[in-house]
Parts: sequence; structure tokens; C-alpha cells
Amino acid sequence: MVKLNENYFNLKESYLFSTTARKIREYAAANPLKPVIRMGIGDVTIPLSKTVADAIARAGAGMATKEGFHGYGDEQGEGFLQEAIRAYYLSNAGVELNKNEIFVSDGAKSDVANFTDLFSNDNVIVIPDPVYPVYLDSNMMLGRKITLIDGNEENGFLPLPYEGLEGDIVYLCSPNNPTGAVYDREGLEKWVDFANEKGMLILFDAAYEAFVSDSSLPHSIFEIEGAKKCAVEFCSLSKTAGFTGTRCGYTVVPEDIVIGGRSLNKMWLRRQTTKYNGTSYVIQKGAEAVFSPEGMAECRKNIAYYKENARIMADTLTKMGIWFTGGVNSPYIWLKCGMDSWEFFDMLLNEIQVAGTPGSGFGKCGEGYFRLTAFNTHENTREAMSRFEKLLAGK
Amino acid sequence: MVKLNENYFNLKESYLFSTTARKIREYAAANPLKPVIRMGIGDVTIPLSKTVADAIARAGAGMATKEGFHGYGDEQGEGFLQEAIRAYYLSNAGVELNKNEIFVSDGAKSDVANFTDLFSNDNVIVIPDPVYPVYLDSNMMLGRKITLIDGNEENGFLPLPYEGLEGDIVYLCSPNNPTGAVYDREGLEKWVDFANEKGMLILFDAAYEAFVSDSSLPHSIFEIEGAKKCAVEFCSLSKTAGFTGTRCGYTVVPEDIVIGGRSLNKMWLRRQTTKYNGTSYVIQKGAEAVFSPEGMAECRKNIAYYKENARIMADTLTKMGIWFTGGVNSPYIWLKCGMDSWEFFDMLLNEIQVAGTPGSGFGKCGEGYFRLTAFNTHENTREAMSRFEKLLAGK
Repeated sequence: MVKLNENYFNLKESYLFSTTARKIREYAAANPLKPVIRMGIGDVTIPLSKTVADAIARAGAGMATKEGFHGYGDEQGEGFLQEAIRAYYLSNAGVELNKNEIFVSDGAKSDVANFTDLFSNDNVIVIPDPVYPVYLDSNMMLGRKITLIDGNEENGFLPLPYEGLEGDIVYLCSPNNPTGAVYDREGLEKWVDFANEKGMLILFDAAYEAFVSDSSLPHSIFEIEGAKKCAVEFCSLSKTAGFTGTRCGYTVVPEDIVIGGRSLNKMWLRRQTTKYNGTSYVIQKGAEAVFSPEGMAECRKNIAYYKENARIMADTLTKMGIWFTGGVNSPYIWLKCGMDSWEFFDMLLNEIQVAGTPGSGFGKCGEGYFRLTAFNTHENTREAMSRFEKLLAGK
Repeated sequence: MVKLNENYFNLKESYLFSTTARKIREYAAANPLKPVIRMGIGDVTIPLSKTVADAIARAGAGMATKEGFHGYGDEQGEGFLQEAIRAYYLSNAGVELNKNEIFVSDGAKSDVANFTDLFSNDNVIVIPDPVYPVYLDSNMMLGRKITLIDGNEENGFLPLPYEGLEGDIVYLCSPNNPTGAVYDREGLEKWVDFANEKGMLILFDAAYEAFVSDSSLPHSIFEIEGAKKCAVEFCSLSKTAGFTGTRCGYTVVPEDIVIGGRSLNKMWLRRQTTKYNGTSYVIQKGAEAVFSPEGMAECRKNIAYYKENARIMADTLTKMGIWFTGGVNSPYIWLKCGMDSWEFFDMLLNEIQVAGTPGSGFGKCGEGYFRLTAFNTHENTREAMSRFEKLLAGK
């Protein structure tokens, strides 16, 4: 008699985005003359760069020709793309990698979640709260013991290791989803030193690194000395190049991580060669074009557009004296709403027709906070902030 | 201190294809004037159908436009592709499915391997020998108890359930990789009845179903009464439409499978929404075109080309009185070589410059057998068979 993985039944159904979507839908239906400005979406909205789309189209058309056809490729990615990512790490973060340390995938979400395969279930997993739900859920699916560490106003939603923190694997995300907060070098140094001292592994999610423009802030954890002995980094073209529906990411597993005499890099290679069949050749050609000078320039232009939205929001909140994180090196603004975050959601929706995301949906430490995103247009962002200012000035 | 998944260290390194590749490379280097005909490859060689490649190119180019851009899609696939697959099941196999039962993915390999997530580790897994290594390795990675059941000449390499067979989950692959053997309706009925009686789950790999031309043979396990209560089916466009490097597959999880009151369909949806981010929109547009009348006609033409190769091989072996399976409703021929399969490999390579794959590489029951594939050209296949006949006639 087949026996199910009972851990699945301990998962909380995450109704966060389905609930916000339903409330917006209901409001819109009841108020057709009052269009809602959506600042809750975490998805990009600007089309792909032409250089990238052309590369995909060319590779796609080529697949019908003898010269352009490609069958099975290496599960860890095409050499040309590994090489482009290697060069990007060097120029973007000053980090030297070997090609073998770079694994191309269909996105950071799959890799972050599938990487759990490599560990025994009796590890203690350390996860900051609030959090991107995948870290939590993928470990709950394995019945692992989880320790949440608090993000809050005092630590700027960037929790640091502390004396007495017990754990074996820690997830860090910087720039952070949902808070937009970014670890500085000193913060990451504390985590890397702690991990190396205690034999912990850091799973570092750098999906939003392309939004970092402050040159003192790290793009990659491998900018920190000692990180190649204790950290794995996940990254994605979703936010760097608008690949949310195109699907390509990469994971860096340093060859220097050796645990009990075993190479974590070789274990991930074995996992991927057994349980993955490589990323579409056509999409890998598009990803290669992201890293070309033209592609990179176009992608940076799109990111600058989103960052201008973030600046508009940040300026408004600063002017109003509202506490927030993010918005400078991130597409997310995490503001203190000073009330129940679902009530704040309802108030913004009903009174000024602006939709965001209640912080409590990302964990208990998110209660009293609210997320706005920078993926709308300049016009809508300005209009939303103008309404926001008027509403709260009147309270 | 991070603890690794020790089960990984019980995996046998599969040197099969790296060993055959090395031997061929060494022979070719030492004998530049004697080109080797490769009949060992399991990868397609004919370019994508033009209809399909055009659809990919069009969707790719469109991603640079406001109208054609697509961000995050549903993890379980775009509705248009689920609908196309639903219609294909009806016309190809006479099977009615609901859209919700169809999950689009990046290929059958990922899904077959990731589906293990849904089960407790104290299931006994039943796997035929010889076997596609992914079934075995993905369960060994979880430390599960595995019972191998023998494929052999007596059962035509199509093992059936037997009194006393104990197990909770069974993997079946038909048309089979590596043997090319195909279960008839009666064989599958026996498995479905057994599974329903014992509370077993059948994981059915139908990746080669498009090679079935004998109308009495099932394309899908869901052609068998009762299968929707006990079977999950994995399929892929890799062999149907030459998508080995393009990457798209699908998995059917019937809503009727309820285990201990839980819906397996809902569990897989939860797994995919948490650990997968959907298949590239661009590739899904190509997959949709596979199921168009033009796309399907072109794909069928390519399959007919490979099947003609299989026929050439099968005719030669029949004429020579050599026992084999496959080659009629499959791109694989599994022949009895009557000697150590690695010795047979060396003999063919050295004496007639034909490369195949030693059966023992697929499991202990493969010893004494040999796999040839139909993915070369007509000319090379004919030439290889002519050399083969001469060589063995002279022994």
C-alpha cells in the first residue's frame, strides 16, 4: 500500500496572493469607475530586451536546420553560457569562478528548492522571518526542524548570527524579498565567519543582485573572504533581464566546499545529471545574449526604469517620515504601516485604489508592515504615491 | 554542522555512456580512416519541424513587444498547451482527461525523478531490470528499499506481476528503454488489476508512445480500465517531436487517485507550485505547435524515418535468426548477443566499426544482450547492418 509523504499535510496553504487577488477583483467589480493601481505584483512588466528576444528567435528558427539543431546538452548547462556567467561574475562582483562551479538551470526557485535533496533530514534549518515562502515550504516538505530568526526594525530586517544560534543550514536573501533590505559587507562577513566556525552552510539567494547600485554593497556572497568554503549562491535572470516567463537561472557551488571529505559540487552535479535534463538550448542562447554588451545595456536600462519607481516611493515615504527598508538597491519597499497589515491593505484599496501586499503574509515578523513593488509604470507609481500622501496626511 | 544525504554515496557511478564514448573516441583516434557508425546514441538527430521552430521563433521575437511579452505563468502550464495535450490524448489514445490532470514540465526525466518527493521513504519500490537508470537512482538517493523484477527472454523483457510480489510503487516503461519491448493491453491490464487490488501505485513512463503504430497496442496506460485509480503517466516531446534539447514534457495525475483521503493530484500541484516555476512560455508555444495538424504531420514523418531504420535492423536480425525485442513500435532494438555484452561491443567496434550499447549497462538482466538505436541515417543503418551480417555469418 503506497504511503504518502505526510509532511505535505503540515504545510500551511499560502492564501496570500490568492486572497489579495480576490479582494482586488471584488473591489474592481463593485467599482468599475475607480481603476486600481497594482503595486503588489512581484512580476516584471517591461518586455525582453530586443537583443535577447532576437537571440531566442534566431536559435528557435535554427532548430529546424541541420546546422542549428541541438539535441541533449549537458545537464549543467552549455559551455558558452557558463563562460558568459563566469565573465559576468568577474566584471560585476570581482569574483573569480571556475566554469565547473556554475550550473545553469530553469530558475532560482527550482534550484533553491531542489538543493534540499543533498542534505540529511536531521539538519536544523535557519530561516529569517519575514521570508520568501519557498525556503520554508521546501524544508517543511521534508519534515526538517526549522528555526526562524527575527527580522525587525532594530536589525533593519537583516538578522545577524548570535551567540547561541544553533543550526546547520541558513537561508539568506539579499537584496531581500520581501523587505528590499540589503546586507552590507560587514553583515555578510559576520555570517560567513559564523558559518565557517560552526560548520554551517549558507544558501544565498542573490536573485535581486542586479538592483544593487551602491558600490559598497556586495552583489555576491563570494565577494566575502571565506565564503567559497561555506556558501552556495542562487541567481536568476528573472529580475536581471525580465526572464520570469522565459526561465533561466544559475547556481554556483564552489569546488572548495568539502563536507566530511565529500564535494558538494560533485553531489549537485550527480543530482542534476540524474534528476534534470538541462535548460532549453533556445533559452540558453537568449541568456547568453543577456550578458553581451548590448543585452546588458538594455537590461540595465529596464532595471533603471524600475529603480526610478522605487525612488519615487522612497522619496515620498522619506518626506512623510514613514519608516521603510528597500527601495534603493531593490525593487521592493517594505514600510511600517503601524496597524494590522490586512487592515492597511483594505484601507489603501478602498480609499485610494492602491493595491500592495500585507507584510504578515510573509511571516509573523511581517505584521505591521506592508510591501510595495516597483514594477508598475512611472505614471501609476507617481499617482499612487500622490494619493498615498493625501490619504495619510488626512489621518 | 551540516549533514549530507549519505544515500548519495551508495549510488553506483554509471560509467556506461562515458565508457562507450571513450572507447569509440580512442578507436577513432587510432583508426582515422575507419569511420565509426554510431548506433548507440539515444538522442534524436532530425531537426525540429519547421512549424514548431517557427512557433518558437515567433514567440521569442514577440517577447520583446508589449503584446507578446509574458511574465510568470502558472506552474502547471499554460492553458492553451494543457488543452492541446487533452485533445491529443483523446485522438491518439481515446482517453478523456480533465485539464487539471495535465501538468506541463521541462521533460519526463525531471518529473519522473521529482515525483518521488510525494512519497514516504518507507515504500518498497518495484523496478524492472534492465532499466532506465533514473528510476533506480532517484529512489536510491532517498534510501528506499528497491525490489528488482527480472526482464528476460521468457517474458519478452516485459515482466508481469506475480503472486507474492510485494511492493508499493512500481515503475513501468512502455515502449521500453532500453529494450524496445511494448506491453499489450493484456499485460497492462494485469498490472492495473494487481495495483488496484494491492493498493500499489504505477508510475508509467510513456516517453516513446509516439513510436507505437500497431493499433492493438496501448499508447497510454489510461486506455486500461481502472488505471485512473492507480497510475500516473509521464510523457515527453523529446522523442515525439525531437525536443531533447528544447525541453518540454507533461505528467498526467488523475483526480481519481485518492490515497488515505488525500488527492495525489493536489499534492503534485503543491509540489510544483512550491518547487518549480513553470516551463518557458516560448517553449510552450513550440509545444502547442507540435499538436497542430501541420506540426503533428511533420513530427510523424520524422518518426517514420526512424522507424524505417528500426525496420532495416529488425529485418536483418530476423533473417539471421537472432532473437530480439523492439524495433517495430520503438526506436530501440534489443538483441541477444550470446556473449558478454562488453566483449560484443568491442568486437563490433573493432571489426566492423559499429558502435552500440552493452545491455549489462542497464542492469544485470541485460548481460548477454545489446542495444542498437534507430537515430542514425538510412544509409548508415543499412551499411551497419550489412557489415553486421557479414561479420556474424563469418563466425
